[in-house]
This record gives sequence, C-alpha cells and structure tokens, in this order.
Amino acid sequence: MGMHRIGRDLRTYYFDPRNRPVAGAHVGDTVVFETVDCFDGQIETERDLVDTIDMSHVNPTTGPLEVYGAVPGHVLAVKVLAIEAVGNAIAALIPGVGVLKDFAPGPFTRVCPIIAGKTVFSADTTIESRLMVGTIGTTPEERVPTGLPGDHGGNMDVPLVGVGATIYLPVFTPGALFQMGDVHSAMGDGECSVTGMECSAEVTVRIVDLVEGRFLPGPLVETADAWGIVASARVFDDAMRVAVRRAAGFLARRLALTPEDAAILLSVSCNARIAQWADANYDTVIYVEVPKHLDRKGRLRAF
Amino acid sequence: MGMHRIGRDLRTYYFDPRNRPVAGAHVGDTVVFETVDCFDGQIETERDLVDTIDMSHVNPTTGPLEVYGAVPGHVLAVKVLAIEAVGNAIAALIPGVGVLKDFAPGPFTRVCPIIAGKTVFSADTTIESRLMVGTIGTTPEERVPTGLPGDHGGNMDVPLVGVGATIYLPVFTPGALFQMGDVHSAMGDGECSVTGMECSAEVTVRIVDLVEGRFLPGPLVETADAWGIVASARVFDDAMRVAVRRAAGFLARRLALTPEDAAILLSVSCNARIAQWADANYDTVIYVEVPKHLDRKGRLRAF
Repeated sequence: MGMHRIGRDLRTYYFDPRNRPVAGAHVGDTVVFETVDCFDGQIETERDLVDTIDMSHVNPTTGPLEVYGAVPGHVLAVKVLAIEAVGNAIAALIPGVGVLKDFAPGPFTRVCPIIAGKTVFSADTTIESRLMVGTIGTTPEERVPTGLPGDHGGNMDVPLVGVGATIYLPVFTPGALFQMGDVHSAMGDGECSVTGMECSAEVTVRIVDLVEGRFLPGPLVETADAWGIVASARVFDDAMRVAVRRAAGFLARRLALTPEDAAILLSVSCNARIAQWADANYDTVIYVEVPKHLDRKGRLRAF
Repeated sequence: MGMHRIGRDLRTYYFDPRNRPVAGAHVGDTVVFETVDCFDGQIETERDLVDTIDMSHVNPTTGPLEVYGAVPGHVLAVKVLAIEAVGNAIAALIPGVGVLKDFAPGPFTRVCPIIAGKTVFSADTTIESRLMVGTIGTTPEERVPTGLPGDHGGNMDVPLVGVGATIYLPVFTPGALFQMGDVHSAMGDGECSVTGMECSAEVTVRIVDLVEGRFLPGPLVETADAWGIVASARVFDDAMRVAVRRAAGFLARRLALTPEDAAILLSVSCNARIAQWADANYDTVIYVEVPKHLDRKGRLRAF
C-alpha cells in the first residue's frame, strides 16, 4: 500500500470542486497531512491579535487529496491513525463573536505549550488532551469556505474525530477531493468562545474504504465506543432535528427496530451533544453519540 | 444526626410556598425520599398509554422537607448518598411532543426490567446505568409545577445528579421546602423523546450544609470529577447564554482569572451539554461541566 505526504504549503481556504488535487491515493493507502493551525500561522505570540491578521486566510485545510476511483454517490471512509501536534497551542477571543463577547470582548490571544500531550494553560492549570481534527471533509458540488460545516464535513469541530476514529463522508465530486486542517489539542463541547486550543499538526490517515451502493446523508464517525451522527445548521433547533432524526433512523435500520422503539432507545441511551455553538448567529453542529454497547450482536455498523 | 424517611404517599405536583412541610431535618441529618415515577404510578404495563392517564398527576415529587433554619438568601447543599430503583423502568412516547414526534408519533409505552443495575431493553440491548434524580429543588417564591425546570432546580434532568453528587440550590422560602422525584435508571443527553427510563426509587440524601452570605444564581452540582453549572430557558440560545455566562464567572472567581482567560479556558476545556431539549416548544436545560482537573490547587469549590 502506498504512503503519501502532503506538505503544509499545499493548503486551501475552500472546499471547491475546481480545486486541482495536490496528491492522489488508492483505497488502502496511508497519507500524512501536514496541517496549519486555524490562524494560518499568523499568530505566533500573545501580542499577535486576531484584528491584525488577514481574516480571509483562516481555517486552512491541507489538500485536496484525490481518492482514485471515487465518484459521486460513493461513501469515503478514512481512519485517523495518528495526530502529532506541532508547536504551541493558540486560543483567541474575536471581537463581536461568541456567547461571551460581552463578558470578555477581546481581541485577546493565549499561546500555550503542549507538554506530554497536555496543554499547559498556566502554572496551576493543565488541560487534559482532546487531540482532534476540527475540519475534515470531502468537497461538495458548490464551493464553500473551509470555515463552515455541512454534510460534506468541513468545520465540524466534533471531538470524536481523534486518533483511532474512522470518519465516513458522502462523495459529491469525482475523486472525492478530501482535505483537512484545524487540529485542536483541547476543546470543550460547544467551543463557546469560537476557538479551541488550535495547533498545527501532522495527521496520518488511512483511506480505508470506498463504499458503493449505500446512501449516507452526512458525516458519520466511529470510535472505539460509539457512533457519532453529525448534522449542522445555522439554528440550533434545526441541527438537533436533523441529527436526532438521522440517529433514530440509524438505530432503527441497524437494529431492526420499529420507529417507536428507536425513538425511545435514542431518548434513554444516546447523548445529543453540542460540537459547536458559539453564538446564535454562528453555525451549530450537533453530534448524537450512539453507544456500541447497545447491541451485543455487533450490528451497529456503518452500513 | 437524625434519620428521616418520607413515604411515597407524601407527594406533590407543585413547588408551592404554601405547601405544608411533611417532614423536617437539621443540617447533618439523613433523609430517605420514597419517590414515584414520573407517570405517578399510572403506567404498569405496555398496554397503559399516556393518553389514558391523568396528565394533571405527572412528575410527582416527594416532600416538601423543611430544613430547619433555612431562610431566603441561604444556599442549601444536599448530597445524594444512594439511589435504589424500585420496580421496572418505563419509557413512553407522548403524541405531539418530542423532536421525533413525526418519526414515531405514539402513544407508545415500553416497560423494561432493571437487572443488576442495567435497564434491559430487549434480549439484545441492555442500557448502561445512568441512575439519577431528574427533579430536585427548593421551592421558589411563586408556585410552579414540578414538570418545569428553573433556578430553584425542578425538572432539570441533569444526569450529573447521581450517587455521590452534591447539589447546591438557592433558598427562596423559609425552611427551603426541598422536594424530589422523577428518578431515571437511564437517560441520554437531551432526552429527545421527552422521557428517560423512568422509575420509582428510594433516594437517600444528607443535608450537608446551609451556606450564609453567598449568592448562588441557580443550581450547581458537584461530582467526583466536575462541577455542573445549570441554567434553563424556553429557548436553547437563552439557556446556553445563561449557563455559559455563569460558568465563565465561576471559573473567573474561583481561579482568580481575568474575564479573557476565563472565556478562553471555558471554550477549550469545559463541555456545554444538553440535559433536556425535546422540542423547540419545550423547556431547555443546559449544564456546563467544569472539570476539577483544571486546578491543581483545589480552588474549584462551591464558594
């Protein structure tokens, strides 16, 4: 199986079907993506504030990678084998956005070392690692900025996308045009002040499958313990409705349950969680965790 | 220290300052509350549907308990020492409510045995225990039904309120008039179809403290690992704003952080989670988890 590396210079600010692939891989290949932090490397010290950087160059993703043989209607499965943070972790307050914009208006920047995998916030405060890929996706039919979430993935900030996770994504364009960036060393559910602990990284993935003949409406994430069903919308209520509805359908089909049993089982055992909700006028991403322990027969599979 | 028991016949459907206390306890006393499930015992088999029961008698709470010496402005601290489920667990679909009301309209009832602490949904599906007290609170100045959440606690459905948790609540009326009910053997974050796995129970608590001279805006829950800051509102956005703002203030005051550092630390390390969001026209309860590991000096205390 092939081994590829995509350097950090090969990054883009859009998922765009007109983007030329910067590399290509077959199913089974391993690819290392060198990613640059969501500030595109423009913030290096705590004196660098978001109002002094070029905000048209943020949330870069490395790629796109062409997956040979992928055509619209396929489902791409990619497994995260390793994430290695590079350099410091950076968090910032951006004036005018985030639920705490009046409590702490910003601009303001924190730069924190990552030591033994943990983000060191201060002498007294060390944050447990939640190393994850914030932005990951295939390219939709129309161009979208890498800062937005959608059914192609994109800027989901779903913390399940860590080492060992497999993400399933619909394919919309020939070659899938897969790209990623926006790694976090730590993040809270909701990411209420708009950033996590943002870092550059090297992310090693394996292209594990191209599935034919199955419909997938949006991102699906598998971890050791759970399935994560992801949906996004501008308004919280809409994101919840879509995510919960998809999760109920997933439960019903995989476990051959009636709608009634699926609706009840979801309510009593699955966590509907907030990936990203920074403000009422900011995109909302919801992920519903379906625990694998719910089925002793192992029927909770992607398809 | 005294030991008291409040029987399941002594239940009420309102937090009401005119309610006469059914028992009294001093700080340090232990009290067993016999609670009845949220259907008030009216559903016993899967043939009993919610449209055949008296919906004015739901979500009963046992009490109120007078806490001797409690006056408005105090903060009541109660520790959950034990929760023992009694009988089966029951979940139901209620027509017209819940995000899945079109997917699975109901009415529909499931009755599941609780075996070795786990709720047995079917031969293939056993749900891990999340034994918790759904409704717990002091009595506000004005009467409210026990089905609603608020700054007095009430029907919060916050899964952190399990064995070992301590809940802090503002005192609004003389004697605090504390009551509880609505135990769940299992529940998913969001409780998207309106019920968890509902059961009757015996809940043993200790009245651990009456704190004077401190302001608490709403419920605060301490577990072994985290603090949970709770807020509720009709609309999701409002509940999030209040919960996140309270959590940021908690972090700032306890850890002597600037607002900027508190806003960032919350965003990168604290999970804003959904206790209850069944529908857009249903009350929303949010809890923000502040992990205790954030402070190696042990300064994350209630006050």
